[in-house]
Amino acid sequence: MDKGVKIVLDACGGDNAPDEIIKGAYEALKKKENLHIIFAGPEDEIKQKVENYTDIPTDRVSYCNATEVIEMAEPPVKAIRSKKDSSIVKGLTLVKNGEADAFVSAGSTGAILVGGQLIVGKQRGVKRAPLAPIMPTMNGVTLLIDCGANVDARPEHLVSFAKMGSIYMENVLKKKNPTVGLLSIGTEEEKGNALVKETLPLLKECEDINFIGPVEARDLPFGVADVVVTEAFAGNIALKMYEGTAKMLMKVLKESLTANLRSKLGAAMALPSLKEHMKAFDASRYGGAPLLGLKGLVVKAHGSSTAVEINNAILQCMVFFKEDINGKIAAEMNTEENSNGI
Amino acid sequence: MDKGVKIVLDACGGDNAPDEIIKGAYEALKKKENLHIIFAGPEDEIKQKVENYTDIPTDRVSYCNATEVIEMAEPPVKAIRSKKDSSIVKGLTLVKNGEADAFVSAGSTGAILVGGQLIVGKQRGVKRAPLAPIMPTMNGVTLLIDCGANVDARPEHLVSFAKMGSIYMENVLKKKNPTVGLLSIGTEEEKGNALVKETLPLLKECEDINFIGPVEARDLPFGVADVVVTEAFAGNIALKMYEGTAKMLMKVLKESLTANLRSKLGAAMALPSLKEHMKAFDASRYGGAPLLGLKGLVVKAHGSSTAVEINNAILQCMVFFKEDINGKIAAEMNTEENSNGI
Repeated sequence: MDKGVKIVLDACGGDNAPDEIIKGAYEALKKKENLHIIFAGPEDEIKQKVENYTDIPTDRVSYCNATEVIEMAEPPVKAIRSKKDSSIVKGLTLVKNGEADAFVSAGSTGAILVGGQLIVGKQRGVKRAPLAPIMPTMNGVTLLIDCGANVDARPEHLVSFAKMGSIYMENVLKKKNPTVGLLSIGTEEEKGNALVKETLPLLKECEDINFIGPVEARDLPFGVADVVVTEAFAGNIALKMYEGTAKMLMKVLKESLTANLRSKLGAAMALPSLKEHMKAFDASRYGGAPLLGLKGLVVKAHGSSTAVEINNAILQCMVFFKEDINGKIAAEMNTEENSNGI
Repeated sequence: MDKGVKIVLDACGGDNAPDEIIKGAYEALKKKENLHIIFAGPEDEIKQKVENYTDIPTDRVSYCNATEVIEMAEPPVKAIRSKKDSSIVKGLTLVKNGEADAFVSAGSTGAILVGGQLIVGKQRGVKRAPLAPIMPTMNGVTLLIDCGANVDARPEHLVSFAKMGSIYMENVLKKKNPTVGLLSIGTEEEKGNALVKETLPLLKECEDINFIGPVEARDLPFGVADVVVTEAFAGNIALKMYEGTAKMLMKVLKESLTANLRSKLGAAMALPSLKEHMKAFDASRYGGAPLLGLKGLVVKAHGSSTAVEINNAILQCMVFFKEDINGKIAAEMNTEENSNGI
């Protein structure tokens, strides 16, 4: 029998906490009968809001009282060490102790990354746990791995990111035999920095991934590869540049369409088609970014997450366990460990 | 008396060579009486096309015969070493020998970067010559330095990029007391990779630049700083991601606006305002990306350059000499050399 999945949800994290977080959980609970949600946050306040949903299945809801909040701008290591009663530290501790399977938060990325590695801990054979956000592109989605967990990574880390990313893409996002590209500054093999040049031959040797070679940043928005492997600093720059450029252009587009009566009328006519075409880029459909290679699952949802993202992040966790991603990563990493000792 | 500026123009470089290159030169020659253009390329063919402009001032035009072409995909170092009769090698050699002041090309970025450093050579006191493209943003333009010349740079190189970038921004692009940001993965000082963390205190100590601290990629499209300093790998990723995202979104916008009759009618009405708002992002207004810190001036124009870009790149070279940028860089770098020995 299905034992179900227990997810700790950070009720204090993100711009729309706690209301949208609770709403997202409510929607997921209604959809999935084998789901149990533990809300981490100030219990009395959260419980009251949760019970406003009168038909919420209370037997599948519990609470983890946490009175402190880690703010977005706090130095992560210090915050994790000093705020023992925060929703992030207490939530991650439940995962560490096996009292929950996964932790989902729209809170401080830094604190989640540091806490995930320090508190939950890495799986055997995993040297670095990468953060792998999903980028909607013109041609499906791309998993960009790593985007923030490990700056100054080494070539062997990038190889393990490629393997973990392929497993996630194939099993959670259901892309068969996903293509893997290595982010570089040209598609020619002689371009790139030292890390890229050292990683390239290692990735070519990997038989268990579908490596297509170096890929350029300009081709990422067009969906050049299903999994794009990179060191976290460059990955973060690529992701933030993608978000920032899209945000800026949408702002300019909006300003231009509302500039005068003529443009407003035109915009009103063109809007349905524009909305239809932009649907593919709605990141909320894909939930959050998993921090892969940990003993449990930790998912970072976008800071601006609404109920839709939270709901989808929870459903994504359910697939993660159904497909036994950690088992598959463990099998892959242990093979690696046996074969070459890294 | 003004001695004039002599510019070698690569007649073979870029997607629209030689016609648009020649047209751009023709327009600049008509505008600037102290400009002399040397066309580098197959002389007979180019001369014939140039002389189709019957009113071109032939006394201010000359030729540098070059029979080889360096292709975009060729490994740069090998190409520069083996193709001695290419427009890039011969053009750069004229600058090296003092027979020309500047070299402008829309050809292979790699070959121009390598050739610029190997053939023209660096100014005294300059350790690395950065490529500094201009990014049009929602709030003026940003000089992104470095974007391709020196992967794996060290902190002291980034400091010199900040200084050279400030000089260029202030004197060529006429931005008074330009702000300088250091590209990072957060605005907090404890974020970033080892290079960022080591560079940060050095930039803070610089009294001759207007340093505003770390800046995030997501804020670049909004024009967060006038000069953004970065190591070339990350800079190239940021720039290419900017170009790629804009290109992709414009494609989606076009598809959505031409999807059906209703959207087409709406688009026709909104178009004038849209075009007006998008004008600020027309990179062709700013010419090319200078490779700073060389003994002469080398400018890389975009591969897709038309006559407008080439014309503007030439005019940008004229300002470079009028403002004696190399003299200013030399003064700055020599001070640096005297004060701390790097």
